[in-house]
Parts: sequence; structure tokens; C-alpha cells
Amino acid sequence: MKLATIAVETPLGSTRRLCVVDDDYVDVTAGYARLLDDDGEARPETVAKTVAPPNMLEFLRGGQRCLDAARAVAKADFEADAHSPDGARIRYDPTDAHLCSPLPRPNSIRDFSVFEDHGADDKADVWYEFPSPYKGNPDTVVDPDETVAWPAYDDRPDFELEIAAVVGRAGEDIAADEADDYIAGYTIFNDFSAREIQSREMQARLGPAKGKDFANGLGPYLVAGDEFDPTDATATVRVNGDQWVQSEVGDMYHSFGDMLEHASASEGVRPGDVLGSGTVAGCCGYDLDRWIDYGDEIELHVEGLGTLTHQIVAPDE
Amino acid sequence: MKLATIAVETPLGSTRRLCVVDDDYVDVTAGYARLLDDDGEARPETVAKTVAPPNMLEFLRGGQRCLDAARAVAKADFEADAHSPDGARIRYDPTDAHLCSPLPRPNSIRDFSVFEDHGADDKADVWYEFPSPYKGNPDTVVDPDETVAWPAYDDRPDFELEIAAVVGRAGEDIAADEADDYIAGYTIFNDFSAREIQSREMQARLGPAKGKDFANGLGPYLVAGDEFDPTDATATVRVNGDQWVQSEVGDMYHSFGDMLEHASASEGVRPGDVLGSGTVAGCCGYDLDRWIDYGDEIELHVEGLGTLTHQIVAPDE
Repeated sequence: MKLATIAVETPLGSTRRLCVVDDDYVDVTAGYARLLDDDGEARPETVAKTVAPPNMLEFLRGGQRCLDAARAVAKADFEADAHSPDGARIRYDPTDAHLCSPLPRPNSIRDFSVFEDHGADDKADVWYEFPSPYKGNPDTVVDPDETVAWPAYDDRPDFELEIAAVVGRAGEDIAADEADDYIAGYTIFNDFSAREIQSREMQARLGPAKGKDFANGLGPYLVAGDEFDPTDATATVRVNGDQWVQSEVGDMYHSFGDMLEHASASEGVRPGDVLGSGTVAGCCGYDLDRWIDYGDEIELHVEGLGTLTHQIVAPDE
Repeated sequence: MKLATIAVETPLGSTRRLCVVDDDYVDVTAGYARLLDDDGEARPETVAKTVAPPNMLEFLRGGQRCLDAARAVAKADFEADAHSPDGARIRYDPTDAHLCSPLPRPNSIRDFSVFEDHGADDKADVWYEFPSPYKGNPDTVVDPDETVAWPAYDDRPDFELEIAAVVGRAGEDIAADEADDYIAGYTIFNDFSAREIQSREMQARLGPAKGKDFANGLGPYLVAGDEFDPTDATATVRVNGDQWVQSEVGDMYHSFGDMLEHASASEGVRPGDVLGSGTVAGCCGYDLDRWIDYGDEIELHVEGLGTLTHQIVAPDE
């Protein structure tokens, strides 16, 4: 199952809806209300808004019951003009729907670095002992195809192709081999990196901040764990249509299970927490020593997850 | 004005309320409903819940209008047995109220390090150029007087006395001298630090994570900026009643204005964002080379902000 968040324009303003993706985007809340009504439920919209809410973070907080509702919607065969009992449209044509990040405001972002062939060659011994994250800014997620204005304080724009796992169930002290029970799904993460400020600020030894926190690309879909295997997928970066690099996601030194075990120890994880893999080996300008410029279009493609595209532009554009 | 969050036990479960602090804790939402009713408002509770909500994060998101409502409550002279129109108690005796962290779930935590005489002596040049933060875990805030069980993966417990500024108004690219318009108030921050794992994980160059993320003490009150001057206050640490160190909060190399300017550049800040000062010079075991042990009670006192007390205990206690 693939989940998407779309923005729907209405006379009462823009509103975000959670959808399952087939040939169309199928509205989970409206579709579930339809199924409940068909099943004799007296208050289908009220129950659907609680059990299958249109906000992804609330949806993830609902746990297995929400996922089951979405799967029921995914299995149903709605007509093109199907509506919920109170008249909400169920199917949206992807060609005229506005796709948002599937998780516009994560609960948190922990971004690890688990590919040995990314970044500096002189890794500390501790890098091999356990996966360490820095924490990202969950308030600056950008939508797929949204233009990213580069921060005025930096002149070394870069991208990073990463895989992000999204937690769907709260837990503490989780063992690595239980990870499948806690990860709701995966998406592509463009960890935009302002290399000039990043290289300077990291000398203060507190990790990256201004080098990363202005924008985080997450999308295009949240793909459930039963449809995506992070140990077996190919990642490709294209800039202005030219392929710059292709790499294997499975080359992780630490697994998502290891990351979840480490993150959850003594502090717990919560629905909507994002665990980033760090740059898939070679999949950023720093690794390639090849640099993007303002106006460039960066496409990050991962087999099974789709393509996440952004254009970056100069400050103040 | 001082704001507190308290937990009130009811037959329908425990619920958190926002209060202004005088001799008693005065319930802001209930008090404001009383004032609205006295003023002829037809739906005092409904308006009070929106304009002066009992959840601190929602309250801060309401901006100046919420602060004005709280100030009106602070100025009113409620009788000891005063109630809102629908019967909610307004005054609580501090001796039998359960005090929570004033901000139980911040929107984010950026923790800087702005005291030259804290931490390593060999500071990088960049440390003097601008203030750099790591990001903390907003999901692990502990209440005043709550016992903190140390994580099983560490055996070097430490505390850090810091000052935290809490953002009360969203903004981007804020100049340092505009900070007073954006900071709602200040509180004490015990940045509990697990030194063994912290010293190891920081070798991976992504900053602290497991060394900090299991617990954050924030409290006891949120003191508005017109009642606390972070450039002129004395901080004192006591362990089991013995004074370990006294230090001056005003010795910051970078001001809260500098931190706000840096944090807000190109990414913005939001209500409920916490900006931590880093350890006030000398105010942690690392700086003193003197170490706490399980069972110890740590009191952090800052003139004007109050005293924040926690006991730490061994893992699994």
C-alpha cells in the first residue's frame, strides 16, 4: 500500500486529505465513510474522521486500526464518481491533484549516517559500533516539486538522497528484529545540505544545524513495509535529466532495525518519528565532488518508492 | 508574570491546567471565563477555552491575545472560593497542587552553548563567530520533582544548569535586537547528560543524541521577559543540599537575541520553540570534575526563575 497527502482546493479554502494510491488517489477518510455507510453504520463520517483521519500524523497515531481502514479502502473498487454519504469526492485524478509531502509535519526527524562510502573516509571507531543521528527540523518539510530557495547565508548548495523510515507505533527499548512491527513505511528523503555553513558549524562539535534545517524533502509517497524492502532497491540521482549516480540502498552498514533499537533505547519512539538513513553511498554532490547550481532540478529516484523532484533557486527568488 | 502548568485530579481523570502564579496558582482559562461572564459575554467558557487555552503550547500559539488574557487574570483579585460560571475552580493552593513542566511538550528544543567557561577549553574559532545548537528531544520533558531513572546504557550521570528562552511568536530572519518581541519568557533547563555515551557518540561528529535525549528538565515556571533579565541573574547548584557552584547567567558570550537571530535565519522559529543557553559556566559535573551518583537530589536555582529539583536513580528503579 502507498499513501499520499494531497491538497484539495474548495470554496472554503485549501485542505489536506490522506489518500491511498492506485491509478487514482483514493481519499481514505471519504472512502472509509462510504464503506461504513454501506455496512449500516449510523454516523459514517464521524466514525471515519476518527478511525481514518485525513492528517497523516493523526492517522499514524491511530496505529493498526487506521492502517486496517486504509487497506479496506485500498481493496474497495470505487466508481470514478463515488462519493461519501455527505458528498465528499473519493477518487482524484493524479494529473490534476496537488501532491504534498505524505508527512508534512513529522513528530521528529533523527537522521543517521549508515553508508560507509558516504562522507569522510576517516570514520571514527564508534561509527562502526552503533548508528548515530543528528536531529533535523520537522517544521521545514517541503512538498514534492516545491521550489527550494537557498538560504542567503550559504553558497554551496547540495542534495542528499536518503531513505526515511516512518514510525507507526510507539515503543521503548525495541529490539532490532522487531522493527517491522514499528515501521509504518518508507519514503525518499532529500536532506538538502548547505555545505559552506555546515562545514563551519560542525567545528563547534554539536552537529549540523543551519546546514540542514531550512528544508527537508520527504515524499512522494509513504510506501508500507510490505511493499518496499530497504535491503534491495536501486537509487538514482538525476540533475536536469542527466544521471549523476546510481547506487544500492542495501549497502547499509547499520539496518533500520539497528537505528530503531538505538533510537528507542531509554527514550522511546513515537508515531510520526522519521529515521533517515543518511546519504546512500555516492548520492550527493559532496561524495561525487560535483556541484549543483541555482535553477537546477534534482530528481531522486528509488525503485519501489518513486521519484522526488525539487528545483533549487537562488536566495530571494 | 509567572505561568505554571498543574495537573488536576478529577473523577474523569487527570487534566492539565495553565495557571498564573501569585500566592496561589490561578487557573487562566477558568479565571478568564469568570472575567468574560462578569463582562456580559454570552458564552464565557467557549471563548475562554479558545482565547486562553489550558495547554501551554496552544496558549503560546495564540500569541499576544492569550498573553493579554493571562495578564487580565493575573490582575484580577479572585476570592479563595471563586469559580468560573460552569463551576471550575480558579485558585489552587500550591502546597497541594501537582506542578508539571510549564511546557510539557515544546515544539522543538535547540540547545546552544554560549558560555565560554563551559566545556572544552580548545573552542573552535567558529564558536566565537556565531552560536551553534544541537537539537534536543521535545518528547522527553520531565516535570519538576519527577524522579529520573538513568538510562541503562550509561554509567556517568551528570546535570547541566541552563537558561531556556521560550518563543511566543513565529518569525523568520529576526534581528537580535527584536528578540523581546518574540520571546514569551524564560525557565530553568536541566539538560541531563549521560557523559560516557555522549563522549563516545560525539566522535561520529553529528552532535549529542543518546547522551541527552532521555530526559529534559524544564521548569518550574515560565517567567515572562518583563520579570526576568537573563543578563543579570545568579545561578546556584545544590546537590543533596550542599552548594556545589554559584555562577553568573549574564556571562553569555552570545545573547538570546543572537541565538534567536541565528535560529530564525531562513528556517524561522515557532511558538513553543525552546532556545537553551548551554551550561552556565561551571554549572555541571563535567566543568567541576565532581560527579553525582544515583539517589542524589539536584537543585538548580536561578534568581527570578525559581528552583528546579530532580532526583536521579539507577536504571530500572
